[in-house]
Amino acid sequence: MTTASYGDDDPIAAFATIPGNSALTLIRCSGKGSPELAAAVFSAGEKLLHAAGNTVIRGWIVAPDTAELVDDVMLSVFRAPKSYTGEDSLDISCHGGSAAGNAVMGILRSAGFRDALPGEFTFRSFMNGKIDLTRSESVMEIVSAKTDMGRHHAVHRLSGVLEQEVNSIKQKLVAVLASAEIFLDYSEDEISADNNEIAGRLPNRELALESLARLQELAQSWQRQRIYQEGILAVIAGRTNAGKSSLFNLLIKEERSIVTDVPGTTRDWIEAWVSIEGIPVRLADTAGLRESADPVEKIGIERSRDLLEAADLVLYLVDGETGLTDADHTFVNNTRHNKPLLVLWNKADIAPLPENLNHDDFLCVSAKTGKGIAELTSAMIAAITGEHQLQTDAASIGTARQKNLVDAAITALQEALHLAEREEPLDLIAPMLREAVNSLGEITGEVSTADILEEMFSKFCVGK
Amino acid sequence: MTTASYGDDDPIAAFATIPGNSALTLIRCSGKGSPELAAAVFSAGEKLLHAAGNTVIRGWIVAPDTAELVDDVMLSVFRAPKSYTGEDSLDISCHGGSAAGNAVMGILRSAGFRDALPGEFTFRSFMNGKIDLTRSESVMEIVSAKTDMGRHHAVHRLSGVLEQEVNSIKQKLVAVLASAEIFLDYSEDEISADNNEIAGRLPNRELALESLARLQELAQSWQRQRIYQEGILAVIAGRTNAGKSSLFNLLIKEERSIVTDVPGTTRDWIEAWVSIEGIPVRLADTAGLRESADPVEKIGIERSRDLLEAADLVLYLVDGETGLTDADHTFVNNTRHNKPLLVLWNKADIAPLPENLNHDDFLCVSAKTGKGIAELTSAMIAAITGEHQLQTDAASIGTARQKNLVDAAITALQEALHLAEREEPLDLIAPMLREAVNSLGEITGEVSTADILEEMFSKFCVGK
Repeated sequence: MTTASYGDDDPIAAFATIPGNSALTLIRCSGKGSPELAAAVFSAGEKLLHAAGNTVIRGWIVAPDTAELVDDVMLSVFRAPKSYTGEDSLDISCHGGSAAGNAVMGILRSAGFRDALPGEFTFRSFMNGKIDLTRSESVMEIVSAKTDMGRHHAVHRLSGVLEQEVNSIKQKLVAVLASAEIFLDYSEDEISADNNEIAGRLPNRELALESLARLQELAQSWQRQRIYQEGILAVIAGRTNAGKSSLFNLLIKEERSIVTDVPGTTRDWIEAWVSIEGIPVRLADTAGLRESADPVEKIGIERSRDLLEAADLVLYLVDGETGLTDADHTFVNNTRHNKPLLVLWNKADIAPLPENLNHDDFLCVSAKTGKGIAELTSAMIAAITGEHQLQTDAASIGTARQKNLVDAAITALQEALHLAEREEPLDLIAPMLREAVNSLGEITGEVSTADILEEMFSKFCVGK
Repeated sequence: MTTASYGDDDPIAAFATIPGNSALTLIRCSGKGSPELAAAVFSAGEKLLHAAGNTVIRGWIVAPDTAELVDDVMLSVFRAPKSYTGEDSLDISCHGGSAAGNAVMGILRSAGFRDALPGEFTFRSFMNGKIDLTRSESVMEIVSAKTDMGRHHAVHRLSGVLEQEVNSIKQKLVAVLASAEIFLDYSEDEISADNNEIAGRLPNRELALESLARLQELAQSWQRQRIYQEGILAVIAGRTNAGKSSLFNLLIKEERSIVTDVPGTTRDWIEAWVSIEGIPVRLADTAGLRESADPVEKIGIERSRDLLEAADLVLYLVDGETGLTDADHTFVNNTRHNKPLLVLWNKADIAPLPENLNHDDFLCVSAKTGKGIAELTSAMIAAITGEHQLQTDAASIGTARQKNLVDAAITALQEALHLAEREEPLDLIAPMLREAVNSLGEITGEVSTADILEEMFSKFCVGK
């Protein structure tokens, strides 16, 4: 993506929806002269040239050389700056199916539009001051949201909650910095002899401490947000015939795994995404863990081990009928200290947990009857989110980029407070405060470099 | 689909694009009170209520109970009768990804919209006199067009070419019928004694003959249209190692088949759609045809035979290196009389066709070097389309429904002409003419029944 060159106002076009077996396909155009270029290949071209912004015109896309009617479309006109990008823009609603959209895109290319780069529309929106970087990022978060809760958080950021919180903290730090700099100016010019006296007395120290607390809250929100965005990997493990596939099927509520009595049928792992209370869970069903001579099955087992390595949560099934074996003991003891583990006593409908086992160590379930599954999903949520209760109304961080910058601001602010405590002079403390302010400016994009922007927007999908 | 109940003007909503990893998702709403219902869940509701048709408003979809901001959308307003359906309508452009679209659909349902049935928007468009049935059908043809040429033909019908041709023929037949009926009235009332005299003298017989010719042309267009719409199945056959997979790969221009020197690697057939001069060709690569003891391979071979049965065109590869074998002879002789067959002398780059073979019987190719492939695709086109040259500007038939009605009109008209030739009385001939006129009326939907409409529109995709 390093060859991407954003930054001009070239007329660009891209599919904004997935071409396929649907009623409509949407193509987005933006940039200097977009209405004029489109008018040359549009049957109602004259109307388009004089159309007000935010109006819709019906007409045919026409091949300029052959006058062939290409598609009957609705064309929405947006005039700068009242558009998503802030430029003159068009949304063209063509017929669905890949042929119609491709034909119209072909005509647009010949009319002078170039294919948009990934994220280029949103990049222009940012460059033209329509949205800050946190909102730009939330646009992509919404598109890739796996569950409704993930979307909810991203929409919250799109509405500007994070931008406002970051700006509010930044204003406080600017106030701290300003009063420090006034002291500095004063001391240098007139009472430099008293410089030592004002050391350690960081002006507006309370404001700095309050800002630090709010930044730390933001930083903590990331762990939870990441869970909602990226989801977690939950791996079902257990001996052959312990009921892994049945549990898998029960959890995904559809037949995606082969349920059978023949040992070793699940040769490799299979997986599916499920939403557990809004958290996207990639649920994987492993092959049996016993050693095997069958080379194909052996590969499956090796892959299962890799999968267990990567797991965020392990659901270990004990076959209640045969009871706890040495193999079960070994697995549980090896895993328990490395990662979150839930040990399930399966087939509890026909084989209750023996009295001599510690009932706190097991969740009794029946993958066959569904017994204990509600308790299992609750336990999964608790194991995933820990003690953090997610406050959906609070501002939260949506991307690793934002998290890194919040961390940088925290580090600089802590250093400033630390220097103040050690009664170091203000001219050592002020640069730390300035660094914290700059980091916060980078989050919203007030301060940014071309490299960072290109890196960020190139991860977007085309058409956004 | 028999439970579908079209016909009212309920407010309906449906996805018009495929929800997924794209910039936008489009949701379409139509029906009585649509703007009012949407205004209750839209942040710019007041603006929407007073918006003129064909305008676009930006705002938030808001959950009515919790006031949660659900998505930031662009809402296009269309006022009856200036909309696709002819009713008050809205196009809502949400963020892409499945979560955003699903959340907005949920809000719309709670606001009083019901999920649209397949084809219900186009059905309403037809019922409100916006488009005739041939144009309605062409909408779905465009969506499912596999190649640009298929789209081109469907768009041609959408522009009304078929509707006009059918109406023009119908007008001529109505003229024939009218003059026949005038004769009838006249003869019944006053000169019934002379009835025999006017028998055999079909008034406007030339018009009837011209109509018949034009109907027959239309009927013939269907065979070609169907090829462009549905495509054809071309099956690559030949002995093991004749180079089937290499030819397959060369034709699909991507690595979709496993090319290898080990006999019997292609255990089952693999296939891909390719566009050959705009004709969608489902290209299938069969397993080797030799008998095999391996049961898995045997299944593959049996399936290959089924595939050959279904083929519209067979490409039989002879291994140029080993030359023509008895197996090759047997296959070619068994197949040649049943279906279009092209016999390819493969590996012609290193093994030229021997002088003693008839050069007209073979196409020399090299799947390895690409030699002879241009000639092969030309030969495939000729074998598929026969002598019919497709005139893209002429009206053509797009669906089996239209074809059946054109056939019915032809049959009735031929019967009328036949009766006239046998000098039967006009009161036997007139009903035949009326039947032909009615069949043509059914094509455009002037004459239609609820059953036929439901059957037709239920095949559409939802959102159309």
